[in-house]
Amino acid sequence: MKQLNPKELKDKENTYNEHIKYMKRAISLSKKGIGYVNPNPLVGAVIVKDGLIIGEGYHEKIGYNHAEINALNNCKKSTKGATMYVTLEPCSHYGKTPPCVNAIIKSGIKQVIVGMKDPNPLVAGKGIKILRDNNITVTCGICQDEIQELNKIFIKYITTKKPYCIMKTAMTLDGKIATSTGDSKWITSDRSREYVHEIRHKVTAIMVGIGTVIADNPSLTTRLTNQTGVNPIRIIVDTTCRIPLQARVLSEKGKTIIATTNDAPIEKVKALGKKMGITILMIDKKNNRVDMNKLITELGEMEIDSILLEGGSELNYSCLEAGIIDEVYAFIAPKLIGGQQAITPIGGKGLTQIKDAYTLKDIQLEKIDDDILIKGKVN
Amino acid sequence: MKQLNPKELKDKENTYNEHIKYMKRAISLSKKGIGYVNPNPLVGAVIVKDGLIIGEGYHEKIGYNHAEINALNNCKKSTKGATMYVTLEPCSHYGKTPPCVNAIIKSGIKQVIVGMKDPNPLVAGKGIKILRDNNITVTCGICQDEIQELNKIFIKYITTKKPYCIMKTAMTLDGKIATSTGDSKWITSDRSREYVHEIRHKVTAIMVGIGTVIADNPSLTTRLTNQTGVNPIRIIVDTTCRIPLQARVLSEKGKTIIATTNDAPIEKVKALGKKMGITILMIDKKNNRVDMNKLITELGEMEIDSILLEGGSELNYSCLEAGIIDEVYAFIAPKLIGGQQAITPIGGKGLTQIKDAYTLKDIQLEKIDDDILIKGKVN
Repeated sequence: MKQLNPKELKDKENTYNEHIKYMKRAISLSKKGIGYVNPNPLVGAVIVKDGLIIGEGYHEKIGYNHAEINALNNCKKSTKGATMYVTLEPCSHYGKTPPCVNAIIKSGIKQVIVGMKDPNPLVAGKGIKILRDNNITVTCGICQDEIQELNKIFIKYITTKKPYCIMKTAMTLDGKIATSTGDSKWITSDRSREYVHEIRHKVTAIMVGIGTVIADNPSLTTRLTNQTGVNPIRIIVDTTCRIPLQARVLSEKGKTIIATTNDAPIEKVKALGKKMGITILMIDKKNNRVDMNKLITELGEMEIDSILLEGGSELNYSCLEAGIIDEVYAFIAPKLIGGQQAITPIGGKGLTQIKDAYTLKDIQLEKIDDDILIKGKVN
Repeated sequence: MKQLNPKELKDKENTYNEHIKYMKRAISLSKKGIGYVNPNPLVGAVIVKDGLIIGEGYHEKIGYNHAEINALNNCKKSTKGATMYVTLEPCSHYGKTPPCVNAIIKSGIKQVIVGMKDPNPLVAGKGIKILRDNNITVTCGICQDEIQELNKIFIKYITTKKPYCIMKTAMTLDGKIATSTGDSKWITSDRSREYVHEIRHKVTAIMVGIGTVIADNPSLTTRLTNQTGVNPIRIIVDTTCRIPLQARVLSEKGKTIIATTNDAPIEKVKALGKKMGITILMIDKKNNRVDMNKLITELGEMEIDSILLEGGSELNYSCLEAGIIDEVYAFIAPKLIGGQQAITPIGGKGLTQIKDAYTLKDIQLEKIDDDILIKGKVN
């Protein structure tokens, strides 16, 4: 490799810093799509010419234009000779919209800086190759870690066709999700509970067990103070279809899915499905319960790319055991309530040996008022 | 108040920064006494003349010289006109050693900067008053919060005659201290367990329930890798004196106390006390168990100023209910094991309503390898 002189080194550093600056802007634009683009990726694009941004855009909603097209359309100056910063490799295939690479080539853009390669097997480097074959300089990998984290749902879904699953728990500092008599209102702070609604807005679906529906009769909607949120699809796991017909989840706006088995009374299934318009999924059993792996596969086929699992204790263990949990968000309130009989976040049969424990990595800590949020990815 | 000109303001700031600098040095010296001075306070002292430290010292061990005397004795120059920085108000009474104020007055020191007033009712401002009456300038309250935190054990003990009690728990992220079959080795990391030994070194006693002794047969000694630690007094709460005569806690170096009741078989008590030299405390019962409030009062009378409570689940709840816990150290390992039957850190009957929960304040988070330590003081 050629040894660079101090000036060349400085130039290189300046260019790199410039790349970071514009990519951060593209990332920031991409985040505007949170909650609206699933199962598509979050993508932002910025077009720069002579040191000035001449156009920018992001993927706003599923089925709408890709970020690159929006950025090109927003340009007021000629894009000839410009540089495009885009968080994800431009697509090379006909999907809901035509390939972005065609538009980029046509625009006369001379350089494309890419955040991360598209993990979509239909793209996976093909977009970059086409650009290069058309004499466009491509640099890939700027701010890659940040963009991958932001698109973890998309990456999981596009490569496995199964939803990214976040298990959310909320417990006291002595490990309880309710007192021994079942009182659970409220363990965590207002701010923590608002935070959960922010997550609900970001995911496509929310899943609970029938026990939680019967005990708490929750709405499972997204309620944010300062903005309108998107209501997630509600998934109720209910092996024998015990759900009361008056349950709130059945009348709230948005879609509700009941995952049940052939243990469900046929009349109840008919009442829910035909009369009330609830989607019923008949799933095979495993250990006399809904087979969570089969359910998750089916949900993936329904284009559900992400699920927030909000318990209870028994469903949480079934999901953990089935290996479908990608990430855990554990809220911990600095409270102590005691109680040998009080329920913990994850019940079930449980493991017998500590050495076999499910472990988490990439641990992150957050303080939310007095509560603590511990996030980690399942190894 | 007189308006200060810019130069005067700057001088004042410089003086204040100087005070902080030397007080921090005194604090750092005081910490060398950790584990050796109980039930005395940690105290450090620095003597400064013409901008140079001419002597320093700290309270090294219970019964030995106070910090002020050590600092004076270590001075190689004349102390006439010097300034003394001392973390705690100098004493004015005859205890195990004569009053420090006499020695300070005799030394010709002209200014004393004090970290915190002595909460000891025998001193409580008298030391400062005597110094002032002898034309010594005294400033009090420099780095006070830090010094109070460092001396929380001393402050509690000198004002209540009861030990400062830290409840230590170690659980998985799903709230378990063992699997459903009782396996608990090891939930937390090596580094977290070493950290517990560091706490053992700092406190006078360690307390466990008989259930823990029978289940784990622990040694309850201080084992540190890089230094010799002080073994805490071991306190076993054992209502009916079930302890096996072969239990490790009975043969380890250092003192063991068994807190029992008149439900204990008299022969067993005799065997333990007279033959094995174990201290037996006969405590009144409350709810058919050792009355924790009475026990704690008795331990205070034995000059035990601090206790690390290491469970198990039932004893933890008894202590919480008795209101004797000052602080909680909750270690959380990023592991999930599930188990409806698995034991949580605090058992017992438990509270019925979340709104009645014991709450913690001054929450601090620490990452210890992959584990999380949450510290908080009981409100």
